[in-house]
Amino acid sequence: MGVSYFCILVLKNMRIDIITILPDLLKSPFEASIMKRAIKKGLVEVHFHNLRDYTKNKQRSVDDYPFGGGAGMVMMIQPIDDCITKLKSERDYDEIIYMTPDGETLNQKMANSLSLYENIIILCGHYKGVDQRVRDHFITKEISIGDYVLSGGELGALILCDAIIRLIPGVLSDETSALTDSFQDNLLSGPIYTRPAEYKGWKVPEVLTSGHFAKIDKWREDMAYEHTKNRRPDLLDENNL
Amino acid sequence: MGVSYFCILVLKNMRIDIITILPDLLKSPFEASIMKRAIKKGLVEVHFHNLRDYTKNKQRSVDDYPFGGGAGMVMMIQPIDDCITKLKSERDYDEIIYMTPDGETLNQKMANSLSLYENIIILCGHYKGVDQRVRDHFITKEISIGDYVLSGGELGALILCDAIIRLIPGVLSDETSALTDSFQDNLLSGPIYTRPAEYKGWKVPEVLTSGHFAKIDKWREDMAYEHTKNRRPDLLDENNL
Repeated sequence: MGVSYFCILVLKNMRIDIITILPDLLKSPFEASIMKRAIKKGLVEVHFHNLRDYTKNKQRSVDDYPFGGGAGMVMMIQPIDDCITKLKSERDYDEIIYMTPDGETLNQKMANSLSLYENIIILCGHYKGVDQRVRDHFITKEISIGDYVLSGGELGALILCDAIIRLIPGVLSDETSALTDSFQDNLLSGPIYTRPAEYKGWKVPEVLTSGHFAKIDKWREDMAYEHTKNRRPDLLDENNL
Repeated sequence: MGVSYFCILVLKNMRIDIITILPDLLKSPFEASIMKRAIKKGLVEVHFHNLRDYTKNKQRSVDDYPFGGGAGMVMMIQPIDDCITKLKSERDYDEIIYMTPDGETLNQKMANSLSLYENIIILCGHYKGVDQRVRDHFITKEISIGDYVLSGGELGALILCDAIIRLIPGVLSDETSALTDSFQDNLLSGPIYTRPAEYKGWKVPEVLTSGHFAKIDKWREDMAYEHTKNRRPDLLDENNL
């Protein structure tokens, strides 16, 4: 008597809730490219929440002057509290993330971990940032995408979403493609070439058209190592491995 | 006899040309927030160039298989050459930038420098990247926004534009606001608070409502230093100053 085994791979979709004062800003990137495809395939759900819908003042104002004076405005706690509390009453969240230049710097390892989560909230800051009490009492993770200042957290949220979403199994058509990206093995990618073999006198390296795949692999490894050593020796540092 | 001096500040606007296969992706962020305002005020011009308009094949294909085999596609040199060559025939460019994870990592200092330029081109990569000959012969600067992989260079281009554009004089309504941002003095911003002074039992630090501005300044400096020491001691390192 034969026994049949069925292996069912259940692809759980991810849900990302983005809290923002500029939902319109976020629109077009989610309607193009990889993120659009992932949403269409049902692998990820992205919801925008307009913070102004949670205000309780007539002007639908989300910010106020900083205590102690100084330039810039500060985002108030009440609308953020109300929005996060409502979302948390509907489901459990793995992380409530605040995009801020003084957060932990995003890297590929962090993107890999976050891509395994089921539900996350991303809060986009604006002006001088949010009232510190939001960070102390609601936020579970603070992420920066780099050492530069942006006009708001929305672009950071887009970066975070793209970095995560492309790693969800089934999103990229050729899954090996993501595994050979820069940073996945702590090496930068070496040079790549496509047709024509000669363009305006500029030729591709001979080894690539040789057909010797062992030689090609060796050349690529060497080039990736050289390139990393030249540009980003810090990635080769054992402490980073 | 009196002599009058007139000081005329000529605000030159900046021109950014973005070469992309996904111009639609870039749309909404430039129609919102600071970038929209800067464009409206005539302080910056942003032009999208669809790379497919420069292809010479029937399918308007911009990519081809990599020489030597392997996963992913490579962007061909010809359409990129034609687009860049056309733009360069129309005006001089300060930099032709390629967004790539193995480029120089963007930081605030680089954003400050780039904001002084008059004309720049930003080339957005896709798939496995562009044919190396594009980088060797056309690109003058390669920039990465961080150590993570994105589905394309468009989001990196958005980050770069936002980081630069907000620094152009006249873009931010309160110019001192950009100067007190994180990173401008190698210190992260300390905590900020706004009304109400007490929310669900959570109070703002007393000093901020004391009215003693000298004390408030001292407290803010101390907090910024402490915060930087805890989160990003590398920024305090003299080598980074």
